[in-house]
Amino acid sequence: MRQSQLFTKTQKQAPKDEVSLNAQLLIRGGFVDKEMAGVYSFLPLGWRVLNKIIAIIRQEMNAIGGQELFLTALQNPELWKKTKRWDDEVVDDWFKTKLKNDNELGLSFTHEEPLTNLAVKHVGSYKDLPKYVYQFQTKFRNELRAKSGILRGREFIMKDLYSFNADQAGLDAFYEQAKAAYKKIFDRCGIGEKTFLTFASGGSFSKYSHEFQAVCEAGEDLIYISQKKNIAINKEVHNDEVLADLGLEKEALTEAKAIEVGNIFKLGTKFSQALGLKYKDEEGQEQNVVMGSYGIGPGRLMGTVVELNNDERGIVWPEAVAPFRVHLLQLGDTQKEAEKIYHDLQAQNIEALFDDRDTTPGQKFADADLIGIPYRLVVSSKTLEKNSVELKKRSEEKTELVKIPDVVKYFEC
Amino acid sequence: MRQSQLFTKTQKQAPKDEVSLNAQLLIRGGFVDKEMAGVYSFLPLGWRVLNKIIAIIRQEMNAIGGQELFLTALQNPELWKKTKRWDDEVVDDWFKTKLKNDNELGLSFTHEEPLTNLAVKHVGSYKDLPKYVYQFQTKFRNELRAKSGILRGREFIMKDLYSFNADQAGLDAFYEQAKAAYKKIFDRCGIGEKTFLTFASGGSFSKYSHEFQAVCEAGEDLIYISQKKNIAINKEVHNDEVLADLGLEKEALTEAKAIEVGNIFKLGTKFSQALGLKYKDEEGQEQNVVMGSYGIGPGRLMGTVVELNNDERGIVWPEAVAPFRVHLLQLGDTQKEAEKIYHDLQAQNIEALFDDRDTTPGQKFADADLIGIPYRLVVSSKTLEKNSVELKKRSEEKTELVKIPDVVKYFEC
Repeated sequence: MRQSQLFTKTQKQAPKDEVSLNAQLLIRGGFVDKEMAGVYSFLPLGWRVLNKIIAIIRQEMNAIGGQELFLTALQNPELWKKTKRWDDEVVDDWFKTKLKNDNELGLSFTHEEPLTNLAVKHVGSYKDLPKYVYQFQTKFRNELRAKSGILRGREFIMKDLYSFNADQAGLDAFYEQAKAAYKKIFDRCGIGEKTFLTFASGGSFSKYSHEFQAVCEAGEDLIYISQKKNIAINKEVHNDEVLADLGLEKEALTEAKAIEVGNIFKLGTKFSQALGLKYKDEEGQEQNVVMGSYGIGPGRLMGTVVELNNDERGIVWPEAVAPFRVHLLQLGDTQKEAEKIYHDLQAQNIEALFDDRDTTPGQKFADADLIGIPYRLVVSSKTLEKNSVELKKRSEEKTELVKIPDVVKYFEC
Repeated sequence: MRQSQLFTKTQKQAPKDEVSLNAQLLIRGGFVDKEMAGVYSFLPLGWRVLNKIIAIIRQEMNAIGGQELFLTALQNPELWKKTKRWDDEVVDDWFKTKLKNDNELGLSFTHEEPLTNLAVKHVGSYKDLPKYVYQFQTKFRNELRAKSGILRGREFIMKDLYSFNADQAGLDAFYEQAKAAYKKIFDRCGIGEKTFLTFASGGSFSKYSHEFQAVCEAGEDLIYISQKKNIAINKEVHNDEVLADLGLEKEALTEAKAIEVGNIFKLGTKFSQALGLKYKDEEGQEQNVVMGSYGIGPGRLMGTVVELNNDERGIVWPEAVAPFRVHLLQLGDTQKEAEKIYHDLQAQNIEALFDDRDTTPGQKFADADLIGIPYRLVVSSKTLEKNSVELKKRSEEKTELVKIPDVVKYFEC
């Protein structure tokens, strides 16, 4: 992509009302735009990053048998009344709207109800189980305040997978698979080392649910980490009983602020009972389907990656989720040579952003640091004297010269 | 994909309240589910089809320089008041909602306003132009009635591209490129021959807009086709002046009902004037940016493909948008051989739905016809006697035997 054509502009300052670091950096770098508090548009650069994260999540969900579908945002109240989640006294972040005939509709803040209802039409016998379905779909949440950038929005894309099993043992086995898949996702996105499997409240149907908490000052949660066991406990269950249950000693745990980047939850038969999701077992007996739900917000994950990977000059993207792999900067009168390198990179499908703009070297360097693409290649008359380009990793200070015929080879390995 | 695991079930009957043919077939085949009137969820089979259509559109939009981004559904009223499109008296299909502080928000029925507003931040000089950006994003329209299945929904994904040019000549040139790209899209989706470039009202800023109208009984529009010139006129501009202007004779035109599968529109400076989208030209003079908008609803396009490609037994998907290319049916005690063929097809990335279900041959044949995958392969003890499988195209009646070692080869070409 040519930067001269890219629909983006870097900004020296973030909007004054933007207090969160992730949004400040993402707005300054031209990744997102703030429509209003908690509502962000994704510009081409940001959309590329989000889609890389989505592709990683999709791959891991497919690998454990997930099938992708796409439910609706508009929600029929009747369904939610059955689970007693329509009332604003019970769920305090509904956005609601009305049809022309004045009938109320909701905007999905989650999709347990419609998906369970849908499963009623698709599951009748033990032969129809298990089923694992997921989607990437917008959720709407009427948050009272929204000050965390893309970490907590009023409108955001969510990956939610729902599991339908014949019995608790089936759910338990899939739950472990999902746990492992989630771990892979956070590893691949470059925040694995800072992300802890965290025990949290399981509600009325299971002892615990599990969160994946990324240690970060911007986090809204407080967790207690056991480095030895590589797990953590959410503050909400940080008590003697749970410590004993998990074999942890209070003194050995470290307190930290953290961002909940994913959660997995055994729903049991809560929704299947309320909405009549049953199946006939091999003896012809009716049984309730046993469910689980598994969420990751790709936008929140992107915001977390930014919060954890930046310096005073801008973002430092991990390679797997960077908008481009290479940022090629053309300085001075080197257009012909830079174009040739850009062409060669493209020919080998090496994703490159080509800064061909008519602007100063200072601006190009500053923008490259702000945007944070992993590898910076500079073509200047000085480098060309040595038939080379200057290579620098965004995450390191040192530079090296790479001979022009070797550039593509460098990125192929 | 194994059909035994697919989250879908075919149905003998569509819901009684479903009057549109496209929705009847898509519901019966397990492609979509009706959440409420005009609001459909996409099940895994339908989501595959929709994404194939989206991929075709994306490719053609990128080919003419489009950059993908993603705007928000929630809309700030202030922006829409500036263009006088907030009032329900002016725009009668808004869905509106409220923040906790009682401030009103809208749900996007289109995105000219937010995108023009966004462009103000990204366009300041002639050097920043042209720009072409597009998205696939949900639109919400509060239709009084919604009886056309996925042809006209209250919630649907829309591809909308917006062009920003320095002058009318730039817009005119891009407009022709977009026209050609649209033609390619409808050709690739298999409805090109029935789709006519149609002259429609241009509003106050240009003589005509252009629609792409697919001739179909389910259509809501009436068009007048000139087979000779391969164009049509929408009823709204079917008058002597326009006929003379286009050099058409009234008697030579054929009237037909049609579905508007795409439209392209020269917006001129309407939105840039209202929202202050200006740039400095080479002489430093301020000029209004000249805009165009270009829409296709992938869901409506999918519905149109179904309306135009079906028979009494079900859907007949064109190959480019079919959920799978091959439907492999295992009949009787042939599991081992069928599994081997399924494995070989997968190994060559030939998309196959494998009907491995424990059900009758009659059910499998009926479902295959209903689902409408282009190639049906039957493995039975009879075909195995000849070391073969039976091949049948969904669009033809004749069958042929293909030797098992030649099956993969057949689909590779």
